[in-house]
Amino acid sequence: MPVKAYAALEQGAPLEPFEYEPEPLGPNDVEIAVTHCGLCHSDYSMVHNEWGISRYPLVPGHEAVGEVVAAGAAATLKVGTRVGVGWQSGSCGACEWCRTGEEQLCLSQKGTIVHGHGGWAEALRVHERFAVPIPDGLASEDAGPLMCGGITVFSPLTDFNVRPTSHVAVLGIGGLGHLAIQFASAMGCEVTALSSTSEKEAEARSLGAHHFVATKEEGALKACRGRFDMVISTVSANLNWRHYAATLRPKGNLCFVGQTGGNAEIAPAALIAGRKSVSGSPIGSPIALRRMLEFAARNGVKPMREDYAMSEVNAALARMHENKVRYRAVFEIAK
Amino acid sequence: MPVKAYAALEQGAPLEPFEYEPEPLGPNDVEIAVTHCGLCHSDYSMVHNEWGISRYPLVPGHEAVGEVVAAGAAATLKVGTRVGVGWQSGSCGACEWCRTGEEQLCLSQKGTIVHGHGGWAEALRVHERFAVPIPDGLASEDAGPLMCGGITVFSPLTDFNVRPTSHVAVLGIGGLGHLAIQFASAMGCEVTALSSTSEKEAEARSLGAHHFVATKEEGALKACRGRFDMVISTVSANLNWRHYAATLRPKGNLCFVGQTGGNAEIAPAALIAGRKSVSGSPIGSPIALRRMLEFAARNGVKPMREDYAMSEVNAALARMHENKVRYRAVFEIAK
Repeated sequence: MPVKAYAALEQGAPLEPFEYEPEPLGPNDVEIAVTHCGLCHSDYSMVHNEWGISRYPLVPGHEAVGEVVAAGAAATLKVGTRVGVGWQSGSCGACEWCRTGEEQLCLSQKGTIVHGHGGWAEALRVHERFAVPIPDGLASEDAGPLMCGGITVFSPLTDFNVRPTSHVAVLGIGGLGHLAIQFASAMGCEVTALSSTSEKEAEARSLGAHHFVATKEEGALKACRGRFDMVISTVSANLNWRHYAATLRPKGNLCFVGQTGGNAEIAPAALIAGRKSVSGSPIGSPIALRRMLEFAARNGVKPMREDYAMSEVNAALARMHENKVRYRAVFEIAK
Repeated sequence: MPVKAYAALEQGAPLEPFEYEPEPLGPNDVEIAVTHCGLCHSDYSMVHNEWGISRYPLVPGHEAVGEVVAAGAAATLKVGTRVGVGWQSGSCGACEWCRTGEEQLCLSQKGTIVHGHGGWAEALRVHERFAVPIPDGLASEDAGPLMCGGITVFSPLTDFNVRPTSHVAVLGIGGLGHLAIQFASAMGCEVTALSSTSEKEAEARSLGAHHFVATKEEGALKACRGRFDMVISTVSANLNWRHYAATLRPKGNLCFVGQTGGNAEIAPAALIAGRKSVSGSPIGSPIALRRMLEFAARNGVKPMREDYAMSEVNAALARMHENKVRYRAVFEIAK
């Protein structure tokens, strides 16, 4: 039976209803009846082929949640299980990273909307390894954005040397940043929100930020010199990273999770003196996703949502392009 | 009694015999009768005020080894103990870094040749915390260069996530690099020496390198893509760091220990995909120095030396400037 979805038929085209024949269900695959799916900036980038890896027709959607409705002969996930699928839909299963539970580092990994059709659709088929059970305490519409936006900011907080006593700055208060503030705050860290203007201050504080810095205000960033153990950059703009590196304490880490294009200029001398790092972090493994969802459910971390019917997809994309979404758009698929 | 030393009387001046009255011996200070002192590139930089922090007359020398000949009333080090002094001669003693044994990160730290007169002298007075006992198995002339050059490359190998199973590349085979090869090899790592030409290949292999790459040879660096867990850069030249970042495996770390001036250009996207880092590492704490010396003594790590009388200092400096030293010049002070 063909799958009903929304697709961009060519680069940059408006999304429109689209049907496709799914791949046969493999022995380890599950079919998910999608109920909700988030809108991540990477969906926008893929529709516009910003990274040169898009294939059309393209069905976006990689923050998908739904119910397993069919399982391959060798699959262990049961029909009826509520699961989520994020950016990654496959990996080689054999390399050192796959074998040690770090599939997000597999060099042969597959992307949900890069190597197949995504979650802005009634159904989604993936290898069961990449269908992650959702804890009972999480609503499906909240779990969606956690599958990509959530794990992207959760990973650097758990994989690097962040401690509950750490001073964490979150640069950029959007889909990723508003979750990063919540996660770091729930871990007990001191959290500082860095945003270009003070427009989002009240919201950032309500999400758990202890401090707010409007970075475009004269001297504001300079006043942060030597203050943070970790700066998580969620922005895509290419800023003056030397100024941000200067906000690090000894042993501090400036971590890129936002897809900043081009080169960042960093002075080695500024890293050497205080044993500092500049790093990048991608999504997370399926096991990391499980831990993140469990943590989110226990600590009440969830996206601030704008809910849309799937048929409103082009309006939602336009709103994202205008930076107006507060802070994550989520589609209800049945609508 | 005045201390006999060699000093640069002004910026860039040849070194010449010089006497000075030492500061009074504080209650926690020791006076060391220096027998040997290494020549580090930072001595050259300080003589020429390359970092704008030099004060003249300047007595260089921060790889000093000798015997404690006097100890302040509160000092615990005994007269007769053989000790070494490296780049750092003081710290506040009260901040979180000093209190947790990471004095090298203290923001009020003092440098042996920045805030006082150094080890190209008959005597040196420092707070006993920065006079590190030398294990019996190490000759004084070998221990000298370990006090700065040695700890500088030992620290990233112990402070970041390097394991005996790691693949380590050492960029630049000089005073620092030839010690880095030995340390990484003694830790059981796979060691690759990266040098611009093949001139030093035989020596690098004799020091423990398993592989050698002449980086200026067509395609040589490209063949290293995705190969290293850690690249330690000991060079001062500002190279195309994107090419070196590309040699990292997932979770890899490009660590600067050489004083590369200016900015390094790094693509955030290249760090994100594989959770990679670019970092810097300074010297090490007194406790790290103890561990490093013990490790070196146990595993036979020691500098390849060119020995000089102190009176030959200007010839040695000229040879360093011409990049001819193989690989560390050490002065015998009595001569």
